[in-house]
Order: sequence, then structure tokens, then C-alpha cells
Amino acid sequence: MSDYRPPLEDIRLVLEEISDISAICGLPGYEHVDSETIDGVLDELARFVAEVVAPVNQVGDQEGCSVADGVVTTPEAFHTAWDKFVEAGWGAISQDPNYGGGGFPGVVQTVMTELLATASRAWSMGPMLTVGALDALHAFADEGQKEVYLPKMITAEWSGTMNLTEPQAGSDVGALTTRALPQDDGSYLIFGTKIFITFGEHELTENIIQLVLARTPESPPGTKGISLFIVPKYLVGDDGSLGARNDYRCLSLEHKLGLHASPTCVLSYGDSGDGAVGFLIGEEHQGMRYMFKMMNNARLGVGVEGLAVTERALQQAADYALERRQGRAIGAPAGEQSPIVEHADVRRMLLTMRAYTDAMRCLLYLNAATIDVANRHPDPGARQAASDRAELLTPISKAWCTDVGVEMSSLGIQIHGGYGYIEETGAAQHWRDSRISPIYEGTNGIQAMDLVGRKLTMNGGSVMAELLAEITSTINDLVEAGDGFTSIREGLADALDAMQEGGVWLAANGLANPVDAMAGATPFLRMFGQLVGGWLMARLALGAQRRIDAGEGETTHLATKVVAARFYAEQLLPIVRAQLGAVTAGGRDLFEVPADAFSA
Amino acid sequence: MSDYRPPLEDIRLVLEEISDISAICGLPGYEHVDSETIDGVLDELARFVAEVVAPVNQVGDQEGCSVADGVVTTPEAFHTAWDKFVEAGWGAISQDPNYGGGGFPGVVQTVMTELLATASRAWSMGPMLTVGALDALHAFADEGQKEVYLPKMITAEWSGTMNLTEPQAGSDVGALTTRALPQDDGSYLIFGTKIFITFGEHELTENIIQLVLARTPESPPGTKGISLFIVPKYLVGDDGSLGARNDYRCLSLEHKLGLHASPTCVLSYGDSGDGAVGFLIGEEHQGMRYMFKMMNNARLGVGVEGLAVTERALQQAADYALERRQGRAIGAPAGEQSPIVEHADVRRMLLTMRAYTDAMRCLLYLNAATIDVANRHPDPGARQAASDRAELLTPISKAWCTDVGVEMSSLGIQIHGGYGYIEETGAAQHWRDSRISPIYEGTNGIQAMDLVGRKLTMNGGSVMAELLAEITSTINDLVEAGDGFTSIREGLADALDAMQEGGVWLAANGLANPVDAMAGATPFLRMFGQLVGGWLMARLALGAQRRIDAGEGETTHLATKVVAARFYAEQLLPIVRAQLGAVTAGGRDLFEVPADAFSA
Repeated sequence: MSDYRPPLEDIRLVLEEISDISAICGLPGYEHVDSETIDGVLDELARFVAEVVAPVNQVGDQEGCSVADGVVTTPEAFHTAWDKFVEAGWGAISQDPNYGGGGFPGVVQTVMTELLATASRAWSMGPMLTVGALDALHAFADEGQKEVYLPKMITAEWSGTMNLTEPQAGSDVGALTTRALPQDDGSYLIFGTKIFITFGEHELTENIIQLVLARTPESPPGTKGISLFIVPKYLVGDDGSLGARNDYRCLSLEHKLGLHASPTCVLSYGDSGDGAVGFLIGEEHQGMRYMFKMMNNARLGVGVEGLAVTERALQQAADYALERRQGRAIGAPAGEQSPIVEHADVRRMLLTMRAYTDAMRCLLYLNAATIDVANRHPDPGARQAASDRAELLTPISKAWCTDVGVEMSSLGIQIHGGYGYIEETGAAQHWRDSRISPIYEGTNGIQAMDLVGRKLTMNGGSVMAELLAEITSTINDLVEAGDGFTSIREGLADALDAMQEGGVWLAANGLANPVDAMAGATPFLRMFGQLVGGWLMARLALGAQRRIDAGEGETTHLATKVVAARFYAEQLLPIVRAQLGAVTAGGRDLFEVPADAFSA
Repeated sequence: MSDYRPPLEDIRLVLEEISDISAICGLPGYEHVDSETIDGVLDELARFVAEVVAPVNQVGDQEGCSVADGVVTTPEAFHTAWDKFVEAGWGAISQDPNYGGGGFPGVVQTVMTELLATASRAWSMGPMLTVGALDALHAFADEGQKEVYLPKMITAEWSGTMNLTEPQAGSDVGALTTRALPQDDGSYLIFGTKIFITFGEHELTENIIQLVLARTPESPPGTKGISLFIVPKYLVGDDGSLGARNDYRCLSLEHKLGLHASPTCVLSYGDSGDGAVGFLIGEEHQGMRYMFKMMNNARLGVGVEGLAVTERALQQAADYALERRQGRAIGAPAGEQSPIVEHADVRRMLLTMRAYTDAMRCLLYLNAATIDVANRHPDPGARQAASDRAELLTPISKAWCTDVGVEMSSLGIQIHGGYGYIEETGAAQHWRDSRISPIYEGTNGIQAMDLVGRKLTMNGGSVMAELLAEITSTINDLVEAGDGFTSIREGLADALDAMQEGGVWLAANGLANPVDAMAGATPFLRMFGQLVGGWLMARLALGAQRRIDAGEGETTHLATKVVAARFYAEQLLPIVRAQLGAVTAGGRDLFEVPADAFSA
């Protein structure tokens, strides 16, 4: 596996051109931050991830995790990297300064998520789950709980998790049966088995703060009867000291396709019979509501994984294509083996990966900045509009980027030829690691149903309409941009037409027959993501061209953004219209095949 | 992993409607075969693969292979399956009766390839490589060599391999450096290292017949100086007895992403310094020509792997979707968890897999039958036309089916949700196993360049034009077929238009600037495969409808073919037109990005 070079030039360009980072820094609460502070932080962070985190990725995968007597062993190198992460204080970056956090905007957290996940998908799961748990505690825990748990989790001395899934309750969270019995002292005793718990048990940190969904006695069935609990691995005394080991146990680890170095645990709560001591967060029966509040951030974070795996696969494939010589490129001297980057078909693969990387980064950073505006803008109307926009973008960020990540890391293998299939090369690891992201944190099918069932028609469709109006406005801007942008404008205009036709069909027919709308949900999400990606690449290209014309920045880098946007518009954007048949077909043919007749 | 149910109903329908199996049985040399004989053989073969081969697939993957002191250990269960394969005589099915073969048409061999590869991708590599080596020996070895090697290879008591690749010579076979030094007795001594040799060493058979590409002294550089040699593991005496162990050694096995149970060997020839004894096949310097003659069969066989992995992934996913309950489907009673097959989005995935399975099987069986006609038709003109048609179809069979196989086995994982990511489930294995097929036997990029560079313009474009004329003829047939076929006709007509536009552009611009044609090769192959798949599904659907109308056959099964063809035409065929931008963009943007600027 090759080294990782954090793409700071790309990151900064997107922060400036797409996230409007200076506007974000102007929001209340971010007065202490400006573009230069962020630049400095990113320089340091990039150095940290390249030197400390990236080297653990392949060795971690080879070493893997194991469990014996409930004790989980993670790769040796993970400990060193975690200790240095704590020492450098990176966990604090976007957390509340009142509890020791750095108070940076959420969009900076998103950049950190990208950098960590690109450096090592498996290792980064630990810090990322901790951020998720921190978000939940910060939003819904009481002041006493915050004082006990937040500071140590912010330093990453303690890690955090989310415990939702049970064998019968995956996508269907409402089917969970873990019980929480109230005790006289206000605490609860938790009994039940949770599965697929990422970083659910390990020895990397002094303590692990499990956030657990469970049912109190006589709760209503389904999602309305679910409450959220803090279950620390070691109980915490009033003075912050660690006390007794809580009554849960890691029964086993999953043998996964990828992310071998990230422990995925089966946790048995109340394993000894006593029950695990838990503390209710907020109010009873509000657990699902709390979880939903967290979901935009969590789903955005998973979307970033699609970008991360593509970036790493691209860097590795591009290095290999410069170095590996096979065959003679058209026009090369006779008798010479050319670097494979000189073959048009290899360039097609590299430029496809390059273009999607730009598109995903634009979408994800825009989504993150929109959440910052939703959280911090002084004007309630602007907050609401941003919140609505974020609701619309989030399922696309999650599903589109993770689907694309699987496709692009597959291209990374292909560029390596036979060596791509050999594990030591490292290209295969990215592909294996990529495959969980379309599944967890709400499958991509669920994201699509969320998009079509809730987001498309939100506020009578006006949230959607406003986004499409902005795309139209960019199309108009492209008229002035010169010949190099003509095909971008035409491609976007055609894709936008198709998108509008699909959206109108779904909104109209979905009311009469929801099955018809659900049948078209996944292709609609694909068309939406593909269009928004192209739109934002066009904006990025316009910004890059403006900088070239003004003599600012590195010309080759900027010109590549224009080429990538044009390539995407001409060659990848037609996928939008190609989805229209599937979006508007309805569910008839899907249900005409009897349920047991799909296979022999 | 679930059981494998060989889909004999589907196979027979395609053999009859697409391969015209009764016409194939009428070809000279196949007089002893008829549809009923084939039916009987397929019944037995299906029972064999389901009972003997399918059960070794997952345990084999878990056990894997190892090497110590040059001795390769394959999974225990592989030995039993191999012995039963020899005992039942399945290796002989399509081989020459003069050497103990069964003399069945090649299309029956293709069905067997499918059944074996679907039962166990890894195990089937052994018999399949043996068939490839048999083809080469049968076509080019002299009579004495045939008498020594063919009979035992046909029984599968001995296995065969192909040794092409070296570290510096992958796609660029002409760069190989293995040497063959002529000896006074007419034999050669072979020195060199070969890599990626599938089933290159193992203890499953008494002997292994390596076919090795090497250079004789003072040969011209590149592919023109390559000769083909037989290098048996144990030298064979005149009486057929096994003699001395030849001087080559398995140095190591590759740690692969998938196919863990198929040993991929590094073989060192002349490892002790003496040199491995080899025997020239045919004439010196004709090695590449001989290999190219074998390629249609070998590439077709790899294409079948794409079908096989999809069929197995579909069966497993369909079983899971019937059983697994999550969420409530629209219209289901409140409080009930529905089988996930009742959710429209899951049905979309299943029907997509179903449709591509039908499309791939049609293409592959048509391709196989075309090769039979090319080999056996009494009329030389008909033989030539079929040979040309097979040349055109083969790169599509190889590349399109294997790309689709990767995509479809990925859907198989997605249907399983989180369980899909767990290795024990077995869905992930199909995906891992699928990923090599787009790479070996000529990468899919090379297939695309072959299609555009050679096949598209073959005979002044008339081979292509005749195929498109047949598609037009099917479109005309669809006019009479009733309302259920309208969208199939419209979809095909639109896709055919796009295809013609792309083909004309490539033919015209490729002459002036070959880079422009190569830049569009991969998207052109995709559009071609996608169109041919849809065309053949339409023909299959017409046949199915005819049978329904005549009251022949099982109606649900036949009706599913019509639904799948319509679904494909409406929802998957628009991908054809979506490739047109990429096909006709030329190479400009690909080469506008400097070679070292694709990543940071």
C-alpha cells in the first residue's frame, strides 16, 4: 500500500468555493476561528494523519482483532496511534469549548473525518463513533452527565459507541427487545444482546461509554417505546475515578469482509445475571427521537467514508499507473514499454476516480457547511432553511457517496491488473473496506425511501424546488463562462430536465400509490446524487477558472478541476437521464414476479 | 451459504430459444447427440454439482491453500470432489471421442462450465484450466503427444494449466523472458519464473501438464519469438508410466482477495539448475498464434464466471429475502414484520439480478453455439460467418458478463444488510470471487480495445452490421407481439440507434486518431453488451410468450421471462444511450490532465 498524501489543495479549494468557509467562520460562536486558523490546523492534522494514522492501515488489516474471555485485542499499532491522537488533542476539534473542545465549525470536523478515514478506515471508526456518542450526550444528557462524561470523551481518553442493532432488529430498530429495569436510585439495569457494535470492546482507552437503546417496562411497542441509556464499561465515581466493571461482556467478534482491524462486537448486557448499570438520557421513550437528531451527522460521516476510500484508492492507483510499464502506448517509440498511465483506458479509469472524488467532496462539504448554518445562523428563518436543505442533502451524501465509493475502489483494483487481486498490494483492502458503508447507518435503500418518502415533498416540495433553482442559476452562470464550459452547461441542463421530470412523477404518483414511489426510490437517489455532483463540480470549475484568470493558485491543479468537471458532464452525467425509466416505471413489474420465483 | 439449485428450466429454455440446440445437434460429428440425450446428461450433471461440488465452496474458502517445501495443500473436500468428478467421467463431456471424450457440442461444455462454476468458483478452476490445455493440445500437438497426454487429461486423472504471466509480462505477454534451450534429443530445457499460475501445483491429480510459453535462443523480440511447450510434472514413459519429477517448483502461493481455495502459484522452472524438460508443441515461434486460437473458448469460459457468480448470489439473496423479516411492507397488516422480499426496493435488486442472469446466459450460450457452428458447419461460408460472429461476441461475453458479475454479487450482499458483510453468510465470498474475472484472460480494457480496434471494423464493418440487422429484425417481430412488448420494442429501438451512432463515430474517428477510439472503447463495450443482452432477452420473452400461448411449459416460469425482459428494457437498457457521450468524447480530456496530476 502506498503512502497517503492528504490532498490539502483540493480540500481548501472546496472549502472556499463550495462551503463558503469564511461565511461559516462569521457565524456566532465561531468568532475565534478564521480561514487562516483553519489552514494552520489542517496543515498540522494532515501531517498527523500521514505520519501516525496512515501507516497503521494495512498492518492493522493483516493483524486483525481477536477476543478471548471477553477481552478484545486490536492491532498493536492501533494503540500507539490512539495514544498520539489523545496527546495531540485532535478529538476535541469541533467539540464544545465549555467541556474542553476546540469549538471549530462542523465542516472542519468533516474534513477531519475525511483525513482520518482516508488514512485508515478501520482505525478511524473508533474516533468517529466517539464523536457520534459525544453529539448525543451534548444534545440530550443532563448537565451532571455531561460533566462526568464529556471531558474525557473529548480528549479521546474514553471512547463512545452506539448500541442499536439486535439480531431481529436491524433496519427495523423498533423490534429491539433489550430491557431496562428502573432501580430505586434512579439508575436502570440493562439486559439484552446487541450485535454489530463497532469498537464495542477494546483496550485502547481507559473506559468505553456505551449508548444503548432499550425498553423500559410496559413501554409501547415499536420505536415509540425505546429509551436511550449511558452504560459505561467502568462505573464513574463522583470524583471522576473509575469504579466497578459493569455487567456486560463481549461474547464474540464478527468475521467481516473488510475492516478487519475494527472490532465489531456482540455485547451481552447483564451477562452475569446482575444487569448492567445504565443511566437514562433525557426522557423515557424519546430514544428514537434522540437518535434521529444525531442521524444527519452520522449519515454525513458515513458518506465521507465513500469519499475517503475513493481518494485512497485513487492515490494508490495513480502511483501504480505512473510506475508500471506494460505494452506500448499509441505514439510511443517502438520497443518501449509505456507506463500504463499513457494508455487511454487507464486514463479513463483514473479520471473517473478523480472526477467522482471532486464531486463527492463538494457535496459532503456543502452538506456539512449547511448543518453549521442550521445550527448557528442568527436568523431563525435562515436556520430553518439550512436545516431543511441539510435534511434533503443528507440521504444523498450517505447513499450516493458510499455507492460510488464501492464502484471507484473497484476501478482502483482494475488499474492494478492481476496485482490488484493480491492482498499485499493493498488495492483490494480499500474495496473490502468500502462495502459496509452502503449498508450501515440506514441502508442505501432506506436513504432512498427517506429521500422520496419524506424529503422530496418536504414543505410542499419547496426545499427541493429551491435546490433545483440554484442549479438553474449555475447553468445561467455557465453561459458567460466561455467555450470550455459549453458541454458542462448542456449536460447539466439536460440532467436537470430529467431530474425534474422524475421528481414530478414521483410526487404525483407516490400520493396515489406509495409502492410506485418506493419502486423508483433508489434510481431517483442515484440521479439526484449524480446531478448534484455535476452541479457542484461546475461551480468548482467556475471558481478554478476565475482563479486561473486572476493568476491565483497553481494553474495545473486548477485546470484539472475544469477538465474533471467537463469529463464528468459529458461522460458521467448522462447516467441521470438513464435512470428516468426506472424512476417512472412504478412497482407493477416488481410485484408481477411471485415472491418465490426470483431464482430457481 | 445456501444450497445451489441448478436452474435447469432456465438453461433448457435458453438452449432451445437462443442456442437453437436442435440445429447444433444436426451438425456433422454430433449425430449421436440430440436434445433428449442432452437433457438426460444435464439432469445427471445437475445432481452431481449440487450434491458433490456445491458443498465444497464455502468450506474450501475457509480452509484455503498452503505451500510447504513446494508441496501445495488444497482443501480436504476438494480431493473427494475431484475423485468423484474423475469417477463420473464429467471431464470428457465435449472432448474428442478418439481419445475417450464424449463428443458433445461445445455449448454443452459451456453449460457444464456454468454449473461447475456456480457450484464452486474456486474448485471449478481446476477442471476449466484442464479443458483449456486440452483444447490447445488437441488443436496443435502432434499425434504422439496427443496419445500420451489427452486420454488421462480427458478423464481428469491429470490436470492441465496455462503458464503465460511473468512479473514484467502481464497484459504485455510479449515481454516474457522464460528460456527454452533445445537438446539433442529434440526436447528443451526450460528456465524461468511464471506467476499467477492457477492450479499450477497441487496433489489432486497424479500428474499436472503445464503448458508453458517460452523463448528459444535467438528468437525475435516480442510476441513473434514465443513458443509453446508441454512441461509435465512427472515425465511420462512410452508405456504411459510416470517417471522422474520434472525440475520446477512452486515457490509460493498468492494471498488473494478471493478464490482462496484455488492455488495461484509462483512456479520456478529449472529451479535446481538442471532445467525443466519440455516438449515443443507445433512449430517454434507460433506460441502466441496457438494461444490466440484458444482465446475464444477461454474468454467465453471467463464470461461464464460472471453469470455463475450472479446466479449463486441471486439464489442466496432470494432465499434470504423470503425468510428475513424486517419492517412492514406497504399494505401489510399493522404490527407485522414482513419478509423483506415484500419491500419494493428489495424486489428491485432481486429483479435486476434476475434480469441480468437471463441476459448473460442468453449471450453466453449464443456465443458458444456460434463457435460450434464455426467449427462444424458443412458449408465453409457458414463456418466463416459464424467464426466472425464469435469473434465479435467473445470480448463482449468476457468483459460485459464479468463486469456485471461484480455489480450483481454486490447487490447480493446489499440484500443481506449487515449480515452480508459477515463472511459466514457467504454472500461476500461471491463478490470476492467475482473480482478476478474482469482482470484475467485479458483485462476488460483489453477486451474493449479488441472490440473497437479489431472486431468493429472486421470485414469492413459487415460483421457488426449483420448483428445489428438481426436486432432490427427482432424489433420488427415485436410489433406483432402485443401491448406487453411495446416498451421492449421501444427500448430496443432507442438503444440500437444509440449503438449505431456510437459505432459509426468510433469507426470514423478511430481511423484518423486511434487514441479517440481507444478512449471510447470501454463505454462502447458496455453499451454493446447491454444492448445485446436486451435483444436476446426480448427473443427469449417472445419464445416464452409463444409457449404460454400454446399451453406449453410452466406458466409462472415463462411469464417471469417476459417480466424480466420488460423490466430490463424499461429500466436497464437506457444505460446504452447514457454511454454515448463517453463513446464519442475522444481522448482530449483524458490527456489534458498531466500524467502525474490525477491525485495529490
